[in-house]
Amino acid sequence: MPIFWLQIKALASYFVKASTGSQNANNIPPAPASSIPNTDKIVTLARMAEIRHRVGIQGSAAEIYRLLTTDAGLSQWWTSDTEGAGGVGSVIYFRFGDDGPRFEVTELVTDRRVRWRHYGDMPGAWKGSEILFDLQAEEKQTIVAFSHYNWPQADDFLAHCSTKWGIFMMSLKSCVETGTGQPYPDDIHIDFDE
Amino acid sequence: MPIFWLQIKALASYFVKASTGSQNANNIPPAPASSIPNTDKIVTLARMAEIRHRVGIQGSAAEIYRLLTTDAGLSQWWTSDTEGAGGVGSVIYFRFGDDGPRFEVTELVTDRRVRWRHYGDMPGAWKGSEILFDLQAEEKQTIVAFSHYNWPQADDFLAHCSTKWGIFMMSLKSCVETGTGQPYPDDIHIDFDE
Repeated sequence: MPIFWLQIKALASYFVKASTGSQNANNIPPAPASSIPNTDKIVTLARMAEIRHRVGIQGSAAEIYRLLTTDAGLSQWWTSDTEGAGGVGSVIYFRFGDDGPRFEVTELVTDRRVRWRHYGDMPGAWKGSEILFDLQAEEKQTIVAFSHYNWPQADDFLAHCSTKWGIFMMSLKSCVETGTGQPYPDDIHIDFDE
Repeated sequence: MPIFWLQIKALASYFVKASTGSQNANNIPPAPASSIPNTDKIVTLARMAEIRHRVGIQGSAAEIYRLLTTDAGLSQWWTSDTEGAGGVGSVIYFRFGDDGPRFEVTELVTDRRVRWRHYGDMPGAWKGSEILFDLQAEEKQTIVAFSHYNWPQADDFLAHCSTKWGIFMMSLKSCVETGTGQPYPDDIHIDFDE
């Protein structure tokens, strides 16, 4: 996103200027080049991007947790071809046709939290990313806070996935509230090419 | 989001350490405190958050542009109570019941781009934010890239709005493709409290 890059460039340029400025309040000479921090590293830290969603589902945290932690559950709202869900360390394979992403389960807190780390190479843009589902039981609903974070950049593919994750969060909600989700291959399409 | 804050804190702490470290390659004494850049400013620059979406709509860019730039058009997919749409400088009032946000139109490129800047105080979390719709005509559809950027932080309200903007992008798509959108008060609800 241009805006995002402008902010990062402003940040990097501010940093370099602040570190190398030839004038300061005490008229101290500029520091030698070797003391300039590695701005590449800072830019990398700052530019990680994230998709967030938040829905309220009229159902128990236990039911939602089951839908996030079992093959049978995940098959009801994300893709009907899901395999490998289990405890921490298990690798879940989500197929959308011939192939699809894999995630390793890295954290499980019963009825409260599920965290996955992307596993393997597909899709490339997801390498290094993680997904967190945080469940918060309220009086009349369970709040599901979703985050797909540690993207290298906020590009067109992130924007596509942001919309699609929103659709799948509504599929999860529908699955609990009506008994029927819209998992692949019955998922709602957001563009002509899907 | 904790992760996001961790990244920002890591960034700020890296910056301070790099600027004040007592050792470096040339064994130069640490710079005086006055030469430490203002890390508050850097954190503010780095932490701006953004919602992005991307849908493909089977309709012309001209039709979509009309739905983004006129009261009659905006009323068909975001809120039925929309008033004030016009040229650059006009302020559009989007009511959801008694009140709602206002946006000033800041950029218009016919059939290509629409940009708004948040106007006034409501909701507080949107102050300073901007919205960009970018239209790209393809052979079989028009791609709409949506961004609501310059949020002060990626909090629960951003997550809620991210899901809700996805819903409204699908409403815009439905409006073009079927003739019927789901604007407020007929919008699809994403939690029990709406």
